[in-house]
Amino acid sequence: MIPLSIRRQALNEGVAPAICIPLVGRSAEAVQGELAVVLEKQPDLIEWRVDFFGEITDTAAVVALARKLREAAAATPIIFTCRSVKEGGERHGRDETAIVELLQTVCASRCVDFIDYELCNVWENVARLRDASRAQGVQLIMSYHNFQCTPDAEFLGAKFAEAERLGADVAKVAVMPKSAADVLTVLSATQRASETIAIPLISMAMGGIGAVSRIVGGVFGSAVTFAVGKSASAPGQIAIEELRTALAVVRQASVSM
Amino acid sequence: MIPLSIRRQALNEGVAPAICIPLVGRSAEAVQGELAVVLEKQPDLIEWRVDFFGEITDTAAVVALARKLREAAAATPIIFTCRSVKEGGERHGRDETAIVELLQTVCASRCVDFIDYELCNVWENVARLRDASRAQGVQLIMSYHNFQCTPDAEFLGAKFAEAERLGADVAKVAVMPKSAADVLTVLSATQRASETIAIPLISMAMGGIGAVSRIVGGVFGSAVTFAVGKSASAPGQIAIEELRTALAVVRQASVSM
Repeated sequence: MIPLSIRRQALNEGVAPAICIPLVGRSAEAVQGELAVVLEKQPDLIEWRVDFFGEITDTAAVVALARKLREAAAATPIIFTCRSVKEGGERHGRDETAIVELLQTVCASRCVDFIDYELCNVWENVARLRDASRAQGVQLIMSYHNFQCTPDAEFLGAKFAEAERLGADVAKVAVMPKSAADVLTVLSATQRASETIAIPLISMAMGGIGAVSRIVGGVFGSAVTFAVGKSASAPGQIAIEELRTALAVVRQASVSM
Repeated sequence: MIPLSIRRQALNEGVAPAICIPLVGRSAEAVQGELAVVLEKQPDLIEWRVDFFGEITDTAAVVALARKLREAAAATPIIFTCRSVKEGGERHGRDETAIVELLQTVCASRCVDFIDYELCNVWENVARLRDASRAQGVQLIMSYHNFQCTPDAEFLGAKFAEAERLGADVAKVAVMPKSAADVLTVLSATQRASETIAIPLISMAMGGIGAVSRIVGGVFGSAVTFAVGKSASAPGQIAIEELRTALAVVRQASVSM
């Protein structure tokens, strides 16, 4: 497992998986309030899901809040994500060109550590954000989400590989399982990708059936698991306290003989 | 997942997996002392590993202790197992014929609920124990263990199927993984078998690498997980308190949306 790193420092001391808590507030006050609650729970990583933010059409308001989050979060790394509607995000009023400009502006503000952008977007936009993020020292997570089903392991493996080929710093795959077999498909695809892909991987199976993947994904190569601090951003997320307890048991058992 | 049942009552209310604690004492006092400690931890199931017992060559001593264990364990079901040396058991002084007779005598005493016998034994012995256990209302677990490596999923699936074909009440597979991929092989074989095999399945990947399977095996069809109460009987077993905590997180997360 390759951990996420900030300035060559591995998150969570390189012990997989790092725990990320999403912020999904509608107002600046709500997001800041969430962050305050969440920081007390000491996540390894924060994700601001700006697609939930009511003022997303006001770039200055977004950047101003990003700055406040940066200040409050101190050393805790921040992912800035505007999840597209077609991959499970909230409906918002901006077109894709405006979103790309927003992400570029946020990169230039240097108050986030990562941006997340979907592989399904047009190549020109992916390339633009690859350049903009790299120029500012912001890492690019390229992601694939499927809230309907779980494609086969070959398809998922190809998504990890596509992210790497396009220059991503991190490759993420999240799918919806309909069976325990689908959960194994995601874990297998991640495990196989971890043998060939040279960037950190993040993967999960969502929903109740997939929740187990949030606990054991690290064993099979996923560098990050998303937990609930105050509010969930996707189905199946587990409260950070419980997730941390289960992860500790997995970790301790794994180093035993 | 099909749970183990005693008199049509599913163990652990049918919630997978049931937790089994092994007893590995060398003397009658040691085994009884272990049982007392272990019962306080409220396992769903106890396994007496009689291959560890110093007086194994004395059938009367074995039956006498089995009776005491039965009395002390009250309603907690007991598996009686003499693990063969070639599948990871302790060295003891009895030949296979004597072991089969011992198992028959213990069945006749009716102070255990299950006996475990390896699939690798000669067919005549398997058939004899199938008849003897059925006649006494004792359930037969037919098992396959590999402490060296993890055969492929087809091989493991064939072991589950062989146990069912030979009339087992429960089919068990335990292997030693050398990689995370091997752990997925066991989980996949169990998940696939659970779709076609009509008896309860037990499976695990042993050692530190496989320990995660003891936590999540239930999600993929394993009806029982082995935990440490006082002393481990195989590598990678987790203390029951910690295992129970992790299982509770898995279970709660799995029923969420």
